[in-house]
Amino acid sequence: MNRVMSAAVGAVPFDLALINASIVNVNTGEVYPGEIGIVGDRIAYVSEPNETGLDAASRYDCGGRFVLPGLIDTHVHMESGMMTPANFARTVIPHGTTTILADPHEFCNVLGLDGMAYCAEASRDILLRVLLAAPSCVPSMPGESNKMAFGPDEVGRLLDIPAAAVLGEVMDYVGGVRQDDRMMAILAEARKRGKIIQGHIINPTARELAAYMAGGVESDPESRLTDEALRKLRSGLVLECRNGSSARNIAALAPALKAAGYPVNATLATDDREPDDLLHDGHIDEAIRQAVRAGVPPVYAVQMATRNAALFLGRKDIGGLKPGAVADIVVADSLDDFRVGAVFVGGVLAAERGELVIDIPAGTSPIEQRNTMNLARLPVRDDFLVKATGETVLLNAMSFLNGDPFHTTLAPTRVPVRDGMADIGSVDGRVTMAVLERHNATGNIGVAPAANIGLQRGAVAGTVAHDSHNLFVFGKNVDDMVAAATCLARSGGGFAAVLDGEVLAEIRLPVAGLVSTKPVRELAAEVDAMKIVLRELGIDNHAPVNFLTWFCLAVLPEVRLTDKGLVETTTQRMMPLFAS
Amino acid sequence: MNRVMSAAVGAVPFDLALINASIVNVNTGEVYPGEIGIVGDRIAYVSEPNETGLDAASRYDCGGRFVLPGLIDTHVHMESGMMTPANFARTVIPHGTTTILADPHEFCNVLGLDGMAYCAEASRDILLRVLLAAPSCVPSMPGESNKMAFGPDEVGRLLDIPAAAVLGEVMDYVGGVRQDDRMMAILAEARKRGKIIQGHIINPTARELAAYMAGGVESDPESRLTDEALRKLRSGLVLECRNGSSARNIAALAPALKAAGYPVNATLATDDREPDDLLHDGHIDEAIRQAVRAGVPPVYAVQMATRNAALFLGRKDIGGLKPGAVADIVVADSLDDFRVGAVFVGGVLAAERGELVIDIPAGTSPIEQRNTMNLARLPVRDDFLVKATGETVLLNAMSFLNGDPFHTTLAPTRVPVRDGMADIGSVDGRVTMAVLERHNATGNIGVAPAANIGLQRGAVAGTVAHDSHNLFVFGKNVDDMVAAATCLARSGGGFAAVLDGEVLAEIRLPVAGLVSTKPVRELAAEVDAMKIVLRELGIDNHAPVNFLTWFCLAVLPEVRLTDKGLVETTTQRMMPLFAS
Repeated sequence: MNRVMSAAVGAVPFDLALINASIVNVNTGEVYPGEIGIVGDRIAYVSEPNETGLDAASRYDCGGRFVLPGLIDTHVHMESGMMTPANFARTVIPHGTTTILADPHEFCNVLGLDGMAYCAEASRDILLRVLLAAPSCVPSMPGESNKMAFGPDEVGRLLDIPAAAVLGEVMDYVGGVRQDDRMMAILAEARKRGKIIQGHIINPTARELAAYMAGGVESDPESRLTDEALRKLRSGLVLECRNGSSARNIAALAPALKAAGYPVNATLATDDREPDDLLHDGHIDEAIRQAVRAGVPPVYAVQMATRNAALFLGRKDIGGLKPGAVADIVVADSLDDFRVGAVFVGGVLAAERGELVIDIPAGTSPIEQRNTMNLARLPVRDDFLVKATGETVLLNAMSFLNGDPFHTTLAPTRVPVRDGMADIGSVDGRVTMAVLERHNATGNIGVAPAANIGLQRGAVAGTVAHDSHNLFVFGKNVDDMVAAATCLARSGGGFAAVLDGEVLAEIRLPVAGLVSTKPVRELAAEVDAMKIVLRELGIDNHAPVNFLTWFCLAVLPEVRLTDKGLVETTTQRMMPLFAS
Repeated sequence: MNRVMSAAVGAVPFDLALINASIVNVNTGEVYPGEIGIVGDRIAYVSEPNETGLDAASRYDCGGRFVLPGLIDTHVHMESGMMTPANFARTVIPHGTTTILADPHEFCNVLGLDGMAYCAEASRDILLRVLLAAPSCVPSMPGESNKMAFGPDEVGRLLDIPAAAVLGEVMDYVGGVRQDDRMMAILAEARKRGKIIQGHIINPTARELAAYMAGGVESDPESRLTDEALRKLRSGLVLECRNGSSARNIAALAPALKAAGYPVNATLATDDREPDDLLHDGHIDEAIRQAVRAGVPPVYAVQMATRNAALFLGRKDIGGLKPGAVADIVVADSLDDFRVGAVFVGGVLAAERGELVIDIPAGTSPIEQRNTMNLARLPVRDDFLVKATGETVLLNAMSFLNGDPFHTTLAPTRVPVRDGMADIGSVDGRVTMAVLERHNATGNIGVAPAANIGLQRGAVAGTVAHDSHNLFVFGKNVDDMVAAATCLARSGGGFAAVLDGEVLAEIRLPVAGLVSTKPVRELAAEVDAMKIVLRELGIDNHAPVNFLTWFCLAVLPEVRLTDKGLVETTTQRMMPLFAS
């Protein structure tokens, strides 16, 4: 601190000066030539416009490029990157991200309280500044079969850990709006600690939104519609404009940002992005590009990812090129086509031309070794067979429309009966789907037909299944289903695609059945290979791996399969398999 | 909370609906017709544009007028209003102010730690939301004779009281920039508690400003120049644009706000306003009018006093018409000529057409009864006489230019000697000035000539003398000086003007010698009467009472008189009375 101040007044030289920079001033929206003086991990001085010649021990010539604060993602589940925190950091820092607010609710659904502990431990000393959200909705809905349910006591304990900056997305907005006791008690835990409360509410009416906000919710990443976004901005909610792998909402939200005068209560977020998207397309830098393409002024797009994010998070030490702030700085080639050239983290050059130039230790945690495939027993054929009588039987099924994973409908399906079993796979456009509880060895297995997934042959299994992350498997062929599910039961989890008994592709995610310890390039290659196989098997979706992960999420409309069977999600009622 | 949420979703009616309103949406900058639903002290719902017909137990017809959040003053010394907190609240609420950040450093200079305790106690239950600053600079400069000096321990204790929202203005910016031990330790106390740090730095160079901010300072109300303001805005400092009684800076700052794209890091503040100005011209409403007159867009002027202030203060419950926020709401007749028509505080109609319509209890505190005129003894003629030999003597004097209280220069003055005494009063344009220590009965008295105050006859005394608030008296006539000083020594403090032994006007401020328990109209009448007398005696200043209060502030350039004698403030060195 003292050395920072001494350098600021010119009593001692700076450690490092960024020279020949076009400074993007996120406070005023101006862009002007200047220099930046750094001491230790802090910004000590940002020059006046056109000032040159800062006295410094070393210099970095920005070559006239744009210099701005490190980028902030205000809402991300690192687990969707399928990487450990260290590998996530190695992946996103070259894209300019220096701070994320990570909600480890996937880890927590599998590991319980250890999920938060793991994320906190594995996020230490990885250069990336990781703020954590204490998950509010574990499970996402009461009664789901995840590892354990977090009540107010558990959430309170998580909020007390030093890295916990916020209460994570309050997804149970039905509970939030209708004042369900558990949800109200959890909100109270956050309020009494003065914590920020992040939300999750899809296209609410103005009245629903008001009730939800009156409960204390301050932000939301779920806007998909222009009107929805403008309603939220007017209400003072912080609009977290999302560019995920599946949910790419920025083009729809840009007109709302314009109508709201490019307000301070809007940030950028990624929520869920897969490893290959992170590697190839980028992270918040890609969100900025999407915003600019959608007509958002480039400097405002940068302000969303820096100043606005820091204001939302109540952090004064990040999000601005400000004396005393942490020297997290991005050098970008252009503002219109936002390409990150160099990244400084805490005053140290961390990445150049998309490559990390500094070592980030991998870190290890005993939790990474834990096998979370806790099935009652290995799966067998009988688990996936539906006994029936007569010539045909009418079964309830969930059906996907246009490859949209976020909305299913009920599609009762007439299925022929052969040898006392419903032969679901024989029906065109239908597969048998099963969900096997894998956390507490209850032996629960839900089975039902599913329609319009696209699969023509073989079977696919996975353990990334929002939010309970049980083992799901679906196929045209019961033997292949057994093979795919068994593969994952033995490997510790991930994804497997099987045809005629042979595993054609596998993504191994042994850490909680959610993430790999492999570096992003290897992992992205596995994901790419899986995508090719899934398309070969008939799943013609633009993000086929991500597509699979939403099949069991009982907070999405209208029908989902869980380990307990089909759920009508709009009413939260179980549905019989046999339609009447 | 639950009832707020229930009303929001429409399950029960609102307690109150504001109908027929033009809603000024400070989140988006839009203005549109709508309604507001209130439950208890909270905003439960802000309607969609053009939505009408909210179901409520009672209604308030806004008659198409503008509705916006209650106004916030981010930096004010209530003591300059010369009123108790309750009377201050009664005065400013009808002008639309519902929250202030008050820095009680005047009280603390006189009352020590009890100054903060008094302000906290007397600010409870007065409808106005009073956030307190723990004063960082008591005294304003080491070595001053105030009641007691606050070191890091005292400031730490004050920061721990619940009402303490921030560390008050770090006026010792020399200490702040040069890393004086005491100042650094005080800053550390604030930083370790995560408190906001308010600043006070006059036209710094970019380098000085950077050092000051690196120490943790986040805001400043002292900008008087356009360039100075733009430099501060670019640096990310929160620019508190001031409209005080003497310091009226908004016209000069408006071009900087424009150049900075009307940024989020700018608020409105009053710092020091006298009772008659508060009563007749107003408070933050007047600052908004000044801003609009200076070319600031009206909605942005409102945003400065609401959204921006709340963001700076880290308060989510004020500064916006937001579900769940406190129902502090202003109804204004116009945005261009901002006149407050009605004010709701916590959902209750508190003022209409400039008049309070609700009772605010006066409150009492034993501290209000405390006599703080702790002189060693009553003043006598000899105290104000300067012994000298020869026919004339050259005395150092401070001199005012153009009635500006904020800048004095050294003006050595040749004075005739009569009967062994320097006859200062006989010199045209010169008065004898004395400062008597009044806190700890040390008997310290400083005496020196002063130039260009304007006084032609009689004498004037006061106990409001930033920041140590010792008893000052100046006059053409030593007998009148004794009479004026004696008047205040007996009354408990305030201001007195004497001619030929007769007290022509007096403002009685018995609480700490700084404020009165009288209501604003009586007090403003006393101040008006005093101004007339001061002008009759020759003090031709646009704010003559306020003018007097700066004579002793040893942090202002270049020469000031204290109880220990003349100080060269630029070097902080004592000056001899006799010039060589």
